[in-house]
Amino acid sequence: MNIRFYNAKILTLNEQEQFEIIRGELWVNGDSIRYVGESKKPAEICAELKLEMPVWEREIDVKGNLLMPGFKNAHAHTYMTFLRSYADDLPLQEWLYQMCFPKEDKLDTENIRPLEVLGIMEYLTSGITTSFDMCYFPPVYAQVAAQCGFRAVQVSGVNSFGGSAAVVEENYLKVNETSDLTSFMIGFHAEYTTKMDLMKEIADLAHKYKSPVFLHNSETQNEVKECLERYGKTPTQLTEELGMYEYGGGGYHCVYFDDKDFEIFKKRQLTAVTCPASNLKLASGIAPLKRFVEEGIPVAIGTDGPASNNSLDMFKEMFLASALAKVREMDAECISADKILYMATTGGAHAMGLDNCDRLAAGKKADLIMIDLQQPNMQPENNIVKNLVYSGSKQNVKLTMVNGKILYEDQKFSIGFEPADIYKEANRIIRSMEG
Amino acid sequence: MNIRFYNAKILTLNEQEQFEIIRGELWVNGDSIRYVGESKKPAEICAELKLEMPVWEREIDVKGNLLMPGFKNAHAHTYMTFLRSYADDLPLQEWLYQMCFPKEDKLDTENIRPLEVLGIMEYLTSGITTSFDMCYFPPVYAQVAAQCGFRAVQVSGVNSFGGSAAVVEENYLKVNETSDLTSFMIGFHAEYTTKMDLMKEIADLAHKYKSPVFLHNSETQNEVKECLERYGKTPTQLTEELGMYEYGGGGYHCVYFDDKDFEIFKKRQLTAVTCPASNLKLASGIAPLKRFVEEGIPVAIGTDGPASNNSLDMFKEMFLASALAKVREMDAECISADKILYMATTGGAHAMGLDNCDRLAAGKKADLIMIDLQQPNMQPENNIVKNLVYSGSKQNVKLTMVNGKILYEDQKFSIGFEPADIYKEANRIIRSMEG
Repeated sequence: MNIRFYNAKILTLNEQEQFEIIRGELWVNGDSIRYVGESKKPAEICAELKLEMPVWEREIDVKGNLLMPGFKNAHAHTYMTFLRSYADDLPLQEWLYQMCFPKEDKLDTENIRPLEVLGIMEYLTSGITTSFDMCYFPPVYAQVAAQCGFRAVQVSGVNSFGGSAAVVEENYLKVNETSDLTSFMIGFHAEYTTKMDLMKEIADLAHKYKSPVFLHNSETQNEVKECLERYGKTPTQLTEELGMYEYGGGGYHCVYFDDKDFEIFKKRQLTAVTCPASNLKLASGIAPLKRFVEEGIPVAIGTDGPASNNSLDMFKEMFLASALAKVREMDAECISADKILYMATTGGAHAMGLDNCDRLAAGKKADLIMIDLQQPNMQPENNIVKNLVYSGSKQNVKLTMVNGKILYEDQKFSIGFEPADIYKEANRIIRSMEG
Repeated sequence: MNIRFYNAKILTLNEQEQFEIIRGELWVNGDSIRYVGESKKPAEICAELKLEMPVWEREIDVKGNLLMPGFKNAHAHTYMTFLRSYADDLPLQEWLYQMCFPKEDKLDTENIRPLEVLGIMEYLTSGITTSFDMCYFPPVYAQVAAQCGFRAVQVSGVNSFGGSAAVVEENYLKVNETSDLTSFMIGFHAEYTTKMDLMKEIADLAHKYKSPVFLHNSETQNEVKECLERYGKTPTQLTEELGMYEYGGGGYHCVYFDDKDFEIFKKRQLTAVTCPASNLKLASGIAPLKRFVEEGIPVAIGTDGPASNNSLDMFKEMFLASALAKVREMDAECISADKILYMATTGGAHAMGLDNCDRLAAGKKADLIMIDLQQPNMQPENNIVKNLVYSGSKQNVKLTMVNGKILYEDQKFSIGFEPADIYKEANRIIRSMEG
């Protein structure tokens, strides 16, 4: 598809990796961005680019609104939509072992599909163009995402309650071949659910495939305490010593870190993926975001799953990431809106190995969203980046494009599924699991 | 206007003040609710109510979506829209004295109007049907709100930098007579901006008019410390001893309370109005919500002004009020979604003296909203109240009605102003204040 967006404000990154807002147009050619720049006669742009004049399938008047990179949700369990508002107001361990795991046991490769479509629909409404997922049945989620046209990076969630290194390897090979939209990294659920022999096998796989490794890391105080009791080391130090991070990676949550943990993340340039809403709601704590930033450790932002959050909304997470850092440090100057927006877009893309989706620029994949600035919460336009982070809402998302295709526009989905059917199925599935 | 909503889920309160969701219809007659109950033939309902068959101006098929009371924003400075994203990332005192006050000095009774309309528009998009406002020029805001059809309760924000008890009295009389939609209570900005003689005059006025008293109370640690240094008492104890609360009232923020403060609020049944987003963003702290609830102290929820928050979004505040209580107490069971929703609706109405707007029931004012449940973030419908509090979004607000009039529907406003004009004016005004 050739699509021309004109009359737009466009959020770009300059050479210092700082956000700039330019006025002009953006051309999409197939799955990629062909041009981002000032408005000129299309013929002039074509001459510059040595390009034949495209035949536009659509020319979209952006009406002075904002085009920006889609949000990258750097930690999620998309299929968990079925447990939204099902088991709340419980501490993490109880919530996980008594409520989530028994219901998850009733999932199969068929009933999980509409639950995943439901999550993808929610991402699109919030301008999220990729999720970094720890899923049940990764090949199934890869199929579902590709079918919807959604970009999905996955990581293994294997643990000693289920799965094996052999299955991880099988998934690795399958998912990475499913579609251009899907990829897979080596990983495991968490130290507290995984025995030493399996962790060692995971490290071997990471070496074999030169893969980064991600896991739930230091989400609760108790998790760190128990790991110290078991191994005399924190989860970060243990996994480092097991040789997990030869090819990078990072951790989800990273709430309780000691000096040595920070050092390892800094040295290896691992990504700390913060999930502020989930950490509050499960009463896990507030991550030390300021220190991650000060140490130059890459940070990305995730929603976590809809059972713990309970929504998949990057605007909520951005506000929280910023505001919680301020109150944690009792310092209202702590972490600027620009830094937060970078984490939610470019930072997430880099964590997922999607360097070709990390900004709006010619040659990058066309994963972008249109933000309606003509709404009261985005006015006046004193500072558009601050408006996005501090007062933005998913209500402002007018259009979500992934890989050059418009999947969501003016509250309508183009993903090959009827919303009403998906809602009906999701309700039926959770009801069928009861009793 | 006679409006019939049918095929609805309706959020009501039972005799134990607990939320229930019934299926049926809701009739609006003029500014009030005439009927809430199960669906029957309209003629049957009329016979029961001994009512002539109404001529409907509109019959609205709610399509199984939710009708619920409008949110009550229990603390706001609506006019501050112009400072949204203008002065961020600063601590409260610096933000207030160096950024807000100098710009506020440039406000007048004309340029403040579009700024207030902008705030009212934002309320409507978030399903807020009333604000409890501490404003510049209260009679002007009363006029603007009445013109838009919006319900506005105001409180005096007098302090020793401007205003006098005489002006408070004048405003009290004027605003309470402006419209059925507007009312005014005695109050003052805060102890830290108000000298003793003025506080005493305010207490006298409260007695004269039998008015509740509200003020910013114990928002920061520093505020309490300085009050203790000045008077040897906390702001709560000082104002109690000055006889402020003979007719009730409460405090905005209430972050730093000691045992005696809790005791006073409990004994007097004063409302603690929590403003979680603002308290985070200005790095003020996290209010002790759990204890307020345990002591049986009324709680309501406010957004505070758009310069500190930076949005006027009750969904954001509800999630925060709940999730922050959980992380503050490190207890994921702390405060249920039901309690939070009660604070955001009924609790706010009671704080503002709007007992006739506190729930959906026959005879109450028709201040209500329609929530679109056919959106991914509201599915599956495991628990609608939890979905509202934990995953709801202003995107779900399909319709906002105040006093029987539909002011917002499907993203369109019916308030007598053109959105584009308001945005243009708001941008012009802040630009004109620069330099």
